Amino acid sequence: MRAEIVAVGTELLLGQNLDTNTAHIAERLAANGIDCTHQVCVGDNLARIADTFRLALARSDAVICTGGLGPTQDDITREAMAEVAGVPLERNPEAVALVEAVFAARGRHMSPSNLRQGDVPKGATIIPPRLGTAPGLIVPVGEQVIYAMPGVPEEMAEMLERVVLSDLRRRSGDHAVIASRVIRTWGLGESALAELVTPRFDALEHAGPSAPTIAFLASGMEGIKIRLTVKAGDAATALAALDAEEAQLRTLLGPLVFGTDEETMEQAIGKLLLGRSLHLALAESFTGGLIAARLVGVAGASQYFCGGIVAYDSAIKHRLLGVPAGPVVSAEAAITMADGICSLLGAEVGLATTGVAGPDPQDGEVPGTCFAAIALPDRPTEAVALRLSGTRQRIREIGTISALDALRRRLLDATP
Amino acid sequence: MRAEIVAVGTELLLGQNLDTNTAHIAERLAANGIDCTHQVCVGDNLARIADTFRLALARSDAVICTGGLGPTQDDITREAMAEVAGVPLERNPEAVALVEAVFAARGRHMSPSNLRQGDVPKGATIIPPRLGTAPGLIVPVGEQVIYAMPGVPEEMAEMLERVVLSDLRRRSGDHAVIASRVIRTWGLGESALAELVTPRFDALEHAGPSAPTIAFLASGMEGIKIRLTVKAGDAATALAALDAEEAQLRTLLGPLVFGTDEETMEQAIGKLLLGRSLHLALAESFTGGLIAARLVGVAGASQYFCGGIVAYDSAIKHRLLGVPAGPVVSAEAAITMADGICSLLGAEVGLATTGVAGPDPQDGEVPGTCFAAIALPDRPTEAVALRLSGTRQRIREIGTISALDALRRRLLDATP
Repeated sequence: MRAEIVAVGTELLLGQNLDTNTAHIAERLAANGIDCTHQVCVGDNLARIADTFRLALARSDAVICTGGLGPTQDDITREAMAEVAGVPLERNPEAVALVEAVFAARGRHMSPSNLRQGDVPKGATIIPPRLGTAPGLIVPVGEQVIYAMPGVPEEMAEMLERVVLSDLRRRSGDHAVIASRVIRTWGLGESALAELVTPRFDALEHAGPSAPTIAFLASGMEGIKIRLTVKAGDAATALAALDAEEAQLRTLLGPLVFGTDEETMEQAIGKLLLGRSLHLALAESFTGGLIAARLVGVAGASQYFCGGIVAYDSAIKHRLLGVPAGPVVSAEAAITMADGICSLLGAEVGLATTGVAGPDPQDGEVPGTCFAAIALPDRPTEAVALRLSGTRQRIREIGTISALDALRRRLLDATP
Repeated sequence: MRAEIVAVGTELLLGQNLDTNTAHIAERLAANGIDCTHQVCVGDNLARIADTFRLALARSDAVICTGGLGPTQDDITREAMAEVAGVPLERNPEAVALVEAVFAARGRHMSPSNLRQGDVPKGATIIPPRLGTAPGLIVPVGEQVIYAMPGVPEEMAEMLERVVLSDLRRRSGDHAVIASRVIRTWGLGESALAELVTPRFDALEHAGPSAPTIAFLASGMEGIKIRLTVKAGDAATALAALDAEEAQLRTLLGPLVFGTDEETMEQAIGKLLLGRSLHLALAESFTGGLIAARLVGVAGASQYFCGGIVAYDSAIKHRLLGVPAGPVVSAEAAITMADGICSLLGAEVGLATTGVAGPDPQDGEVPGTCFAAIALPDRPTEAVALRLSGTRQRIREIGTISALDALRRRLLDATP
């Protein structure tokens, strides 16, 4: 089974919007074992959209299209599909009712132009919207098919998972269940991580077609992801295979793993703090609020996160955190800051960062010279040296996840 | 003149990387008056890349291609271009010397596989790399042309500006100068802004072909951008037209404008503070470090930014900032926080935020109920109510730029 992705929208051709839908669909197709050899973007032009669909159907079994399903005159994906399928547009009562219901639920008046969204190619199946107002469409073209979804990323992603992927897999005659899991890591680069995982690559290669596959995905501040994908006869078997492989990888990777699937570093830390009834305070220098911003991004963070100080000016480090006069880019300064913020905010756990983000050196230290210190109850406060490189932005971002990871490691080590 | 954009890379087809190059090139083509009707992504497959080039040249005058220029076996853009141009690959001494020089400068050993980067289609012009190791190529195909650039975004963008856009415009026979300027605004939505600018749309419509064009570009936390583009016989005339139109827009928009081109809100504030020799301290609650992170992102921020407190736990607001016991989501609490942070950190200017980011209500207030307060020397401290909506993330982000903008407005009002 091969599917081609088509993004429709003049705003994309003009570079006014970045198309994130195509990459999302591509990733989901790959995870579902569906090939994709071409991705195309075309503007709001009937002849060009129709030509693009025809070409796509000449080289693939299915087209997955996003955009151009709205109510305005430049939303012409419906017309293009009808032309390619060789059928007329028909006002579809189900589609009209869906659009009317969305307006009624929001207490808004529906203008007649919105009825355009009820005109669909004859023979099409409606995909009811759950998040937006535009219905999706499944349009048969002979033995082939065009799926059309709205361009709004959340609306598209929801329809893709709920309807399109399973319909595609049903058409492909593939009744196996495909499941995947992401193992999230920090602490090693992609190649060192791959080396560590070599025994599993070797084992899986000889384990037959139902063994999971392993793929790496570097994701900047979100760490390096290891995606496991498995195909099995039923969901329970797939889940068991993922569980077994995750256990194998965790044995190899140990504390490099900080979470699975959507679990972020800051959520992992929140869990550890909650489980130990500890409260965290921050003293940030070169990370300048980035660590706080990530922690506050988690709903419910107030249960374990007190707050912190952005001690950007050295005077604040001296005055509020007790750092002695002199250079402030050192392990000693970081340790004093971590202890100082615990006292100041009445927290049991302190995380402090100090360092040179650049572009200029500070206190004779080159950009990238950075320290993180962690204060924990009943343990000596310790600092780790972070040797970072790159732009000011990159040093601050990699410093942020590295400092959070240092805290996570120390919390793991500490007896609960 | 019409150009088609082709992105090469199996990692893009698998959704492992998000292609940002295409949108960047598209935007620059539009700004240079070059049409683009199709954008295509294809994997590392010789026949498919060559077919994609042939199709693109059948409907456009030029192809701009990114990716597949590296040294490994799956980098086959060079081979595909040679095939389409009907010429052999030749080892090019200039290209070899460029690649060797890059390795020598980095003190790294060059493996023989890197010599592949010196094999280019006969008749191609080399684009020397300035930021990376891979040379770009200009490959003539009869009267048409394929430009190939590396896939690394910064390397690509640099070559695009330095060589590709001007070469395209030269080929198009268009010797006019195209220049553009971005006017950056905050405070009104896109439609209200467009309404305010209506007199300029009307005036420009009747001003002839050398008048600037105006386009809007909503950019989230970076504000709403107004892009002016002008085409003139020479650079001085273009610049004068941009200056004149910017002046007209500034008259209409007044303090809604916070900067031009790459100038961010935080840079605009930095300039105002520096010009008035003032120092800023922050007390952030629901924005939780986001404001600090943006200010610290500017190199040299230490000249005007002291630091701040992330007063996430209400106890910190009470204890360190002097907020009286009771509800903390109010204009009064914000004002006390702004005054408190000035005293605590010895700053002349204080910016404080308090509010409900959600998803749950707090102190009986619904998510989105937020306040920002600004303390300035010799003025009463004032708070503004921000009524925000959306997800927790959106409330925090829009709250951040709104609070910064409130500070900017107050600094503008204050006599220097």
